[in-house]
Amino acid sequence: MPYPSEQSAPTGLRARLHTIIFESDTPAGRAFDVGLLWAIVLSVLAVMLESVEAIRLQYGEAIRVLEWCFTGLFALEYGLRLVSVQRPLRYALSFFGLVDLMAILPSLLSLMLPGMQSLLVVRVLRLLRVFRVLKLASFLGQADVLLTALRASRQKIIVFLGAVLSTVVIMGAVMYQVEGAPNGFDSIPRGMYWAVVTMTTVGYGDLAPKTVPGQFIASVLMIMGYGIIAVPTGIVSVELAQATRQAIDPRACPGCGLQGHDLDAVHCKHCGASL
Amino acid sequence: MPYPSEQSAPTGLRARLHTIIFESDTPAGRAFDVGLLWAIVLSVLAVMLESVEAIRLQYGEAIRVLEWCFTGLFALEYGLRLVSVQRPLRYALSFFGLVDLMAILPSLLSLMLPGMQSLLVVRVLRLLRVFRVLKLASFLGQADVLLTALRASRQKIIVFLGAVLSTVVIMGAVMYQVEGAPNGFDSIPRGMYWAVVTMTTVGYGDLAPKTVPGQFIASVLMIMGYGIIAVPTGIVSVELAQATRQAIDPRACPGCGLQGHDLDAVHCKHCGASL
Amino acid sequence: MPYPSEQSAPTGLRARLHTIIFESDTPAGRAFDVGLLWAIVLSVLAVMLESVEAIRLQYGEAIRVLEWCFTGLFALEYGLRLVSVQRPLRYALSFFGLVDLMAILPSLLSLMLPGMQSLLVVRVLRLLRVFRVLKLASFLGQADVLLTALRASRQKIIVFLGAVLSTVVIMGAVMYQVEGAPNGFDSIPRGMYWAVVTMTTVGYGDLAPKTVPGQFIASVLMIMGYGIIAVPTGIVSVELAQATRQAIDPRACPGCGLQGHDLDAVHCKHCGASL
Amino acid sequence: MPYPSEQSAPTGLRARLHTIIFESDTPAGRAFDVGLLWAIVLSVLAVMLESVEAIRLQYGEAIRVLEWCFTGLFALEYGLRLVSVQRPLRYALSFFGLVDLMAILPSLLSLMLPGMQSLLVVRVLRLLRVFRVLKLASFLGQADVLLTALRASRQKIIVFLGAVLSTVVIMGAVMYQVEGAPNGFDSIPRGMYWAVVTMTTVGYGDLAPKTVPGQFIASVLMIMGYGIIAVPTGIVSVELAQATRQAIDPRACPGCGLQGHDLDAVHCKHCGASL
Repeated sequence: MPYPSEQSAPTGLRARLHTIIFESDTPAGRAFDVGLLWAIVLSVLAVMLESVEAIRLQYGEAIRVLEWCFTGLFALEYGLRLVSVQRPLRYALSFFGLVDLMAILPSLLSLMLPGMQSLLVVRVLRLLRVFRVLKLASFLGQADVLLTALRASRQKIIVFLGAVLSTVVIMGAVMYQVEGAPNGFDSIPRGMYWAVVTMTTVGYGDLAPKTVPGQFIASVLMIMGYGIIAVPTGIVSVELAQATRQAIDPRACPGCGLQGHDLDAVHCKHCGASL
Repeated sequence: MPYPSEQSAPTGLRARLHTIIFESDTPAGRAFDVGLLWAIVLSVLAVMLESVEAIRLQYGEAIRVLEWCFTGLFALEYGLRLVSVQRPLRYALSFFGLVDLMAILPSLLSLMLPGMQSLLVVRVLRLLRVFRVLKLASFLGQADVLLTALRASRQKIIVFLGAVLSTVVIMGAVMYQVEGAPNGFDSIPRGMYWAVVTMTTVGYGDLAPKTVPGQFIASVLMIMGYGIIAVPTGIVSVELAQATRQAIDPRACPGCGLQGHDLDAVHCKHCGASL
Repeated sequence: MPYPSEQSAPTGLRARLHTIIFESDTPAGRAFDVGLLWAIVLSVLAVMLESVEAIRLQYGEAIRVLEWCFTGLFALEYGLRLVSVQRPLRYALSFFGLVDLMAILPSLLSLMLPGMQSLLVVRVLRLLRVFRVLKLASFLGQADVLLTALRASRQKIIVFLGAVLSTVVIMGAVMYQVEGAPNGFDSIPRGMYWAVVTMTTVGYGDLAPKTVPGQFIASVLMIMGYGIIAVPTGIVSVELAQATRQAIDPRACPGCGLQGHDLDAVHCKHCGASL
Repeated sequence: MPYPSEQSAPTGLRARLHTIIFESDTPAGRAFDVGLLWAIVLSVLAVMLESVEAIRLQYGEAIRVLEWCFTGLFALEYGLRLVSVQRPLRYALSFFGLVDLMAILPSLLSLMLPGMQSLLVVRVLRLLRVFRVLKLASFLGQADVLLTALRASRQKIIVFLGAVLSTVVIMGAVMYQVEGAPNGFDSIPRGMYWAVVTMTTVGYGDLAPKTVPGQFIASVLMIMGYGIIAVPTGIVSVELAQATRQAIDPRACPGCGLQGHDLDAVHCKHCGASL
């Protein structure tokens, strides 16, 4: 995303700030990104460690101090972002703008409202900010291929999920009837939870069929699920192969400029010119 | 499925009803489909919630009233469908005709026969009616590709399932012998249930080998199952790739005979001839 | 496998017997195959049911009588096979000859030697005889594609299994050290059993890490296993695609007679003749 | 890896030693490799068996004697390797040099320092030496295709792992909040362990959601994980297909420029020109 040229040239300072904070092709911009990455990872680590009771009891004070440093840093960064963009409100309401705000809000709120301790866990959402940094990195191309493949197979995956969900509801009801409350299947939603745990081959074992007919039905569901797991894999493989093929060949037709030719194409599929 | 032109033109009312109920390319037809979809989803949700004891105790009366409304609606719809088709008996005996009937029967039967409470769970089969609505939607093409792929790999999957079932029977018998009743493997069918749970990688843990030879045999089975899971995935991937390619374009180049052109191709990618 | 023409023409009776028992392209041969299939499936079902204590106590006598009928039938069939082939010894020592013998031996031995009850479970190996019948059926082609794909990927799968087994041994030793006997990891082989259960994503839960470092190492192993499961799937998919492609195109080169051309081939890859 | 020709010709003995120990194209070299392979496998087996308490109590003395024989053998081999290479230090600091040293160090250290019993488990790393032998074998080509595919998909897999890890952290925090300490989710890291166990479909069941919202969130995560497992499989399949195709043949047709010919192709399949 190069800096958009606009009529009213921005003031020099704001332009410099924007380059440093939002872009990563200058040394300063890259250093800012690396620093931000570390701050995000360390602050999420601090949240994680604070949740462990033994650590909280011993190092709680130090972690809380660290937390306030990070909150201060992120608040400063948020302010600079607001200042450096042309339209602050639009930034503030964008997805990453809200994620940036979420990085500082919970700590501030828990200070003002004493009962909001449970909000603190929201701070792990800071992790999402990592993607803001990665957005600018060289992994973009690879992520793009993955996203293209997933988007192309969206409709197939919806059809597939519909079939899976219907199976889950029906098998949940069947097991509720067959096994019943004494064996833990005390409602249809509970049976559906069991069906999801089984079809996805997770298999906790907290709920397991105990009667002979129940075990037979479960076996059939498992073998079905075994075959069904092949379907999304096949869908994604095929779309990924397509997306890779299109991403690989960078040739543009000399006649009409079309890109995305197959690797073995000799003529443009659109105008027939030699490639 | 456009309305079939027949010799004896149907009466105007019946034709209009048919268009609304069975088709979805008029505004009224689309509105009917959307309404039906909501009624199905809500009525299945009501069945699910009624099975939760806490909810049944508190809101049981409301849910039962709702259930009667839905039953009435579906009965009315079933009547209209019978009236609007040319051959009511053929509709009534078709797959979707029976599914439509199943949506109203359980409630009616549980009213007449007091002992049929257990039939109520059959009402979740109403969910199958969702597919009647979707049949008309744009997802048809995608579902078709999936079904074509599955149908094309039917024979390979049967051979594969045969191999899996034989392994299940033999491993079930082996573990019945090796582990025996004290460790829970008290019959060959129980051993087969364990073999299915293990090979599909579900692994509840309600039955697990406890002796050293049993754990060794189980490890071999797991690594086998690990490799075996690759087979259906491979089958479906290959057939899906084929089905996708064929769905994309059946055209052969008049110049060189090449097939497998992209949908938007105007010229052959190999020799440049017009398609 | 057509009947091999030999110098010394077999007697008429033996030839007819051979046609009925070993082939399936005459009505009598097909009827024999279908009857045999049913006898195999029913006798395996009887073995399975006899292992269930409740059924054995109630119907044990009937099942034992049935077992003797099947043993008699299979013995008669074994005798006829021996008589009808040209070289009985070679048949008796072939794979299917031994499987056929295994179908009658356990019952006979358990009659003669009273202590051999545990041999009875060997009778489920009768199930392998099903493949003798299927060998002649139309599924042969599909099974062939699967076997070709598996054979072609044999070397890759061995390399892969070697990597998996090394990981299993090393992780088993690591967890034996980290978790130790009090948490159930009381030897390296036990740790290896846990590693197999974990890497294959079976996850019984009979052995699970309880210490924090153990849970961390286990998490790493799981995510590794998650990626590793992709490898055999990819291998089989690729080989299956290749085997399918070669099986699909039946064209033989008019110039040199070569088969197995790619679907999009216009010229023979061997001699350059037009296909 | 043929013997590198250098200015100062090595002494005859050292050259012979090098050929035997480091290469495998002479009968002596092959015999050395096979012997080494057996020594490695047997010594790892001895370590494994020694860790089983029942075996240690009964055969401990014999195993310890065996261990000293193997340590002596490996020490002798290490010395010979040091002597036979041109630059001993460079060998000693290479990856396989360190692995070779690790094969003898633990036993020696446990003799000198009585408290180092726990080091003994390090001896299973001897298993890594198997790869030194296999490096020279015919499996190299196959392993190469696998490694090429994995290397080519490295970036995609990193993007994918990043997405998985973010999901793990966020879901771990969510479940810590929703289920809480009484249900076993007593910290965010514990919740992350549960998320890994669930997303990879291992599902031990040592930690499982018990509240209704927790079970609902877990169901969503499982179905997500079910779809996500398709991604690495698709990535590896596509790259493996590419690596296989490229391994098969890099030739381009001089007539039409088509690539991807079969290894045994003599003529281009498209235009018939000689390759």
